[in-house]
Amino acid sequence: MNIEDLVYNAASWLSGEGDGDGMVVSCRARLARNLAGWAFAPKTTLEDQKKIIEQVLGAAQQCRPMCDAAFFHMNALQANQRQLLVERHLISPALAKSKGQRGVLFNADESLSVMINEEDHLRLQAILPGLQTHAAWQRVDALDDALRSELDWAQSERWGFLTACPTNTGTGLRISVLIHLPALVLTEDMERVMRGLTSMAFAVRGFYGEGTNVVGNLFQISNQATLGVTEGEIVEKLSEITQQIMGHEKEAQATLLADASAQVEDKVWRAYGILQHARVLSGQDFMNLLSAVRLGCSLGLIDGLPLGFINQLMIVTQSSHLQAEARANLSSADRDVRRAELVRRRWTEQRGLS
Amino acid sequence: MNIEDLVYNAASWLSGEGDGDGMVVSCRARLARNLAGWAFAPKTTLEDQKKIIEQVLGAAQQCRPMCDAAFFHMNALQANQRQLLVERHLISPALAKSKGQRGVLFNADESLSVMINEEDHLRLQAILPGLQTHAAWQRVDALDDALRSELDWAQSERWGFLTACPTNTGTGLRISVLIHLPALVLTEDMERVMRGLTSMAFAVRGFYGEGTNVVGNLFQISNQATLGVTEGEIVEKLSEITQQIMGHEKEAQATLLADASAQVEDKVWRAYGILQHARVLSGQDFMNLLSAVRLGCSLGLIDGLPLGFINQLMIVTQSSHLQAEARANLSSADRDVRRAELVRRRWTEQRGLS
Repeated sequence: MNIEDLVYNAASWLSGEGDGDGMVVSCRARLARNLAGWAFAPKTTLEDQKKIIEQVLGAAQQCRPMCDAAFFHMNALQANQRQLLVERHLISPALAKSKGQRGVLFNADESLSVMINEEDHLRLQAILPGLQTHAAWQRVDALDDALRSELDWAQSERWGFLTACPTNTGTGLRISVLIHLPALVLTEDMERVMRGLTSMAFAVRGFYGEGTNVVGNLFQISNQATLGVTEGEIVEKLSEITQQIMGHEKEAQATLLADASAQVEDKVWRAYGILQHARVLSGQDFMNLLSAVRLGCSLGLIDGLPLGFINQLMIVTQSSHLQAEARANLSSADRDVRRAELVRRRWTEQRGLS
Repeated sequence: MNIEDLVYNAASWLSGEGDGDGMVVSCRARLARNLAGWAFAPKTTLEDQKKIIEQVLGAAQQCRPMCDAAFFHMNALQANQRQLLVERHLISPALAKSKGQRGVLFNADESLSVMINEEDHLRLQAILPGLQTHAAWQRVDALDDALRSELDWAQSERWGFLTACPTNTGTGLRISVLIHLPALVLTEDMERVMRGLTSMAFAVRGFYGEGTNVVGNLFQISNQATLGVTEGEIVEKLSEITQQIMGHEKEAQATLLADASAQVEDKVWRAYGILQHARVLSGQDFMNLLSAVRLGCSLGLIDGLPLGFINQLMIVTQSSHLQAEARANLSSADRDVRRAELVRRRWTEQRGLS
């Protein structure tokens, strides 16, 4: 498999399925796991790392959910190729930057992936469209079960699964939703919502997870606590919290429509017009315009534009995707021109379909 | 004739004819004339004004170019109706504001008009599309000849035609072009061009003439001197100057395309997208966006959008036109919503035609 070909694939979690209100793009469940008998990071030697990769790949071959999976060793990838995987949410920014023996394994529709030798020996991930927290947890749990039949996890009766960083110890589970909250941002209520989440031990992060910025009003909300609670409780709690936030966003949308409907509609429709006609689009400009269009879909102002199309556009317009498609390193100015071209082309194709 | 019906008419000078480069919207020739034997403004009494109107209307009835003309007495018009005539360039802002016995006479295609008791007893105007300075002069000259056979002009052998203000004495001729100079504004060369024009005794004014602002990069350029030169020389000189400025604008357009083609195309196409989709458009916002679209036509980037359509849109989106169509006084916010609605509706109709 040529990694650049990913550009032409739509990952299954972008389908827009289960996202009836146009708010929850996707949900993701990840498990931190380590192999018993090996040093944890940062004490793992290069030799250890190499053997861990071999063991994990061996186990994956025996494991039904990963039988069609592709493996990429980080050392075999160039900077743009690694970044492409970050943009697809298949690896973390930290893994892309790291040195040593590290890699990623992911299945054809990109719903399941395993980072090897990131912070932990294994990071298992399931990612699904919409607010399917329970299903995402079940997918990653099934992958965990399948791998566990071949591998021996480091765990203690008292603490549960052991991890390189104590914040992941216990269940090793982090579950998150990628949620679009434009009205809470516009009404300046997002700060209050974020304070509330933090006080309940939920984290609010940017588009690519920990340490990344919020772009296009997309927030990643995840549990902080992994210890002293069951996986079921974590999943249930996140689902509940997400529905509460969706309620707040709906209220904020109603307020906006009541107070300034013409201005909201104008913002939405100008963005719709600009995206179809612009010749230069910076990444940030694009994400803000797309956010306005997505808001228009949530509000029922724009009809017939599938959320799957919007989600896919959000992925393929990222810098490394543009460079992969061009098979060249592009200047920032060239990327902005190519981004606008791509958006116009895809939009025309989409219009042809609908 | 109901004055509000003008909203649904396109004045002939908006046709875009003769404006091959998309720069010169229209040209206008006006003659200041006064009747012999009556006091000039501001010494004309109300009684004088009344009799002057009667004389002029009597003469116009005998005069072929004005046989289908409509007459409106300013006192019979409400503020919005007067402003509607200003927006159509049929009367001056000064006439709209004035009190006393005053009026306007104009023919069906709005190419010929006569203001009665503005600064002078008569102000004859011919307005044609594109750079037809000579034809505009001929039209107003023919009207002058026709009226002169019925009326007695105040003139002296030494000074020529006598006027209320000495700046108009002599020929009484002011000839102007309405010209779109977006590239000279963008490259910040317009200041220099304006200084050059002033030094050659040409005036640069805004959209509605003397004392009005420049909107949407549209400038009105006219002669200052009316004395000591022949009408033919004035017409010739303005035509020549206009062609020079068009040359400067073309150079500035070429510079923009050479230095920042993507940015220029982006500006043009975003405006094109926004105008078709916006839900709120202030007058200034609209004129700036329309200027970008007109630039796109001049540059050959946008194809198939007739200049006549752009010109007509510029007229009907003005505040008094919107109010006349709505048959109501509208708040500024309501006008902005109606302006956006009108632009979308007209654009859809235009697409249906092309």
